[in-house]
Amino acid sequence: MMTPTRGFTQQEFEQRTIRAQKIMHDMKLDAMIFTTEPNVRYFTGFHSQFWHSPTRPWFVVVPAEGKPIAIVPEIGAKGMAQTWLDTIITWPAPRPEDDGISLVANTLNTLPSRHGRVGVTLGIESHLRMPVNNYLKLTTMVNKEFVDIALAVHELRQIKSAAEIAKTREICRITNVGFKRIPEYARVGMTERQICKQFGIDMLQAGADECPFIIAGSGPDAYDDILMGPTDRIIEPGDVLLIDTGAVWDGYFSDFDRNWAFGYASEQTKAAYRATYEATTKGFEAARPGATTTDIYNAMWKVLEANGALGNDIGRVGHGLGMELTERPSNTATDNTVLKPGMVMTLEPGMTYAPGKTMLHEENIVITEDGAEWLSERAEPELIIID
Amino acid sequence: MMTPTRGFTQQEFEQRTIRAQKIMHDMKLDAMIFTTEPNVRYFTGFHSQFWHSPTRPWFVVVPAEGKPIAIVPEIGAKGMAQTWLDTIITWPAPRPEDDGISLVANTLNTLPSRHGRVGVTLGIESHLRMPVNNYLKLTTMVNKEFVDIALAVHELRQIKSAAEIAKTREICRITNVGFKRIPEYARVGMTERQICKQFGIDMLQAGADECPFIIAGSGPDAYDDILMGPTDRIIEPGDVLLIDTGAVWDGYFSDFDRNWAFGYASEQTKAAYRATYEATTKGFEAARPGATTTDIYNAMWKVLEANGALGNDIGRVGHGLGMELTERPSNTATDNTVLKPGMVMTLEPGMTYAPGKTMLHEENIVITEDGAEWLSERAEPELIIID
Repeated sequence: MMTPTRGFTQQEFEQRTIRAQKIMHDMKLDAMIFTTEPNVRYFTGFHSQFWHSPTRPWFVVVPAEGKPIAIVPEIGAKGMAQTWLDTIITWPAPRPEDDGISLVANTLNTLPSRHGRVGVTLGIESHLRMPVNNYLKLTTMVNKEFVDIALAVHELRQIKSAAEIAKTREICRITNVGFKRIPEYARVGMTERQICKQFGIDMLQAGADECPFIIAGSGPDAYDDILMGPTDRIIEPGDVLLIDTGAVWDGYFSDFDRNWAFGYASEQTKAAYRATYEATTKGFEAARPGATTTDIYNAMWKVLEANGALGNDIGRVGHGLGMELTERPSNTATDNTVLKPGMVMTLEPGMTYAPGKTMLHEENIVITEDGAEWLSERAEPELIIID
Repeated sequence: MMTPTRGFTQQEFEQRTIRAQKIMHDMKLDAMIFTTEPNVRYFTGFHSQFWHSPTRPWFVVVPAEGKPIAIVPEIGAKGMAQTWLDTIITWPAPRPEDDGISLVANTLNTLPSRHGRVGVTLGIESHLRMPVNNYLKLTTMVNKEFVDIALAVHELRQIKSAAEIAKTREICRITNVGFKRIPEYARVGMTERQICKQFGIDMLQAGADECPFIIAGSGPDAYDDILMGPTDRIIEPGDVLLIDTGAVWDGYFSDFDRNWAFGYASEQTKAAYRATYEATTKGFEAARPGATTTDIYNAMWKVLEANGALGNDIGRVGHGLGMELTERPSNTATDNTVLKPGMVMTLEPGMTYAPGKTMLHEENIVITEDGAEWLSERAEPELIIID
């Protein structure tokens, strides 16, 4: 398989903008404002690690017609000039007394005012990457109503293009390479941290740009927690180890996990593994255009429940995936999002199958015209025992 | 040098909380609310990569008396139970119709109401990691005034404890190891991306937990942009290469850079390197308790100006450093923050010394009782030429 091309064509950004402008037409908006890394990157192509610095706010305004407008710190001007945008407005940030706000207000005030409404991500699973006080001040400096577009933007981004899916497929391929090497070096006596360190190095060598999310859990016959590792806990005979990872290629994430036992495992734990594997199969079969995230949830949870699930404190059995490790929607009992071709999702069955014993499994898929397609190469149907 | 211990003593968290409660007393607040990863970690010790998932909001309420209270998604309950906190309130997130808000409101409403005021990070260099609409709703559910505490929290966090400084010193030591290996393998014909990939692997092997920020710039005799690399640009004879990195050990960042020329460099570029080295020396000499960030700026900019600086589009010549890659304050012409012992800072002289030619240099220091101390081992006084 050939490595896909980095970046996107200008046509891709034009189509994203046109789709946003269609939403603006329907929602009667004159513009949309964006402040977070994925949203700025989605509309401009601006792709930099500099977002790790939380000091300076960045803004992109997408008007009802024409190209997006960047309003960014001076330090970002050269990088933004490499994108498809024509209008790049800058200020010498950080400038506490006016950190870009008057420039954003001026931009919004000089756009044609057809509806007197501006869209901002204010609602579900959103945040603004700017001081709230500056946002509130902005709303007083612009003579327009500020309307929530969080759900609409989630819905826009959750339908991936072929070029986006190719990037996710590539990082899933790399992630499988990294996971498959684990039995070659993971041994009793190593710590969770040592195994994860080698996995992170392998992921970089296998082609990942970065591997920012490497979580481990381990314990006798099972792990309990899936959030806090890796720790310096030493792997012992009879332990089960989970590694859950989110790796990135050209700005797109994989998010799946694998489980291993060391030496031996109980029949109960082997059965729990089989149950999550089977739940994944059923989730995959339920994942097709027109079905919903709740159909996926029901298909998966039925298997887990029949296999002794005592509960699931993760709150869902999978989610959207793309420029972020987790995106909307969620596979839950009440989410009911209708699946459409181009949606990239995780299937993530997890259950507590005995007090203190958790089994978590995860794969990545994309919804196609007539069903779904695996992006991760599926795990083994039986729990791998490392001797 | 011995590797410092991971984590912190309970006493450290008690002291952080007492310092916050002193601020609450002075600002007449009944509680403070926190939503971002560094602030939640600062008061609780909760340290997880799970924050890469943006789906669920997390809350910590620090009351005017007693321990902080965590209000977190159910998935985080086990991890939070490992901290020094006693009160952990959870809900099955994601739950769009009420994602923790009623629990936060209830917690605030049941705390003693002495002043009728609650502190939230709303202002300078802050953001809330929750939907703005939920924040606005919260303010209507709680019968208290919501007051900005952004600057006070920056000031609280910017005085580091000995244990915090030890972590930064450790990651600076590791980062020097990584940089010193570069001349062993970086060669003409390699791409920026290949060199950064090997650097990232070396950093993990040298002991970094992660190295999320690795930026490169290169070009004939100089680089121009310092934000967008690494790219697939191939290093040629006569190129200058910059790598700027932010690596992490136990949750604390280093942030410094190094420059190399391949084969040869112009006298002008060598002189620009010497100027940034000299500016760093002058910045270090100006960095002592009672002096200000503006004193540092003036001492450094004077050297750069005398050496032909045409401008600086970074907006500052250094900044605070700690749990985040960049923190308050900033070394600027107008910042005027008074330096105090325990402040960890970068000295980051950068200048455009000819059209399209940038030189950027950076070191990390800590303010001591009577001056400052290097945390990074200083760069060579002359530009390194890799043959």
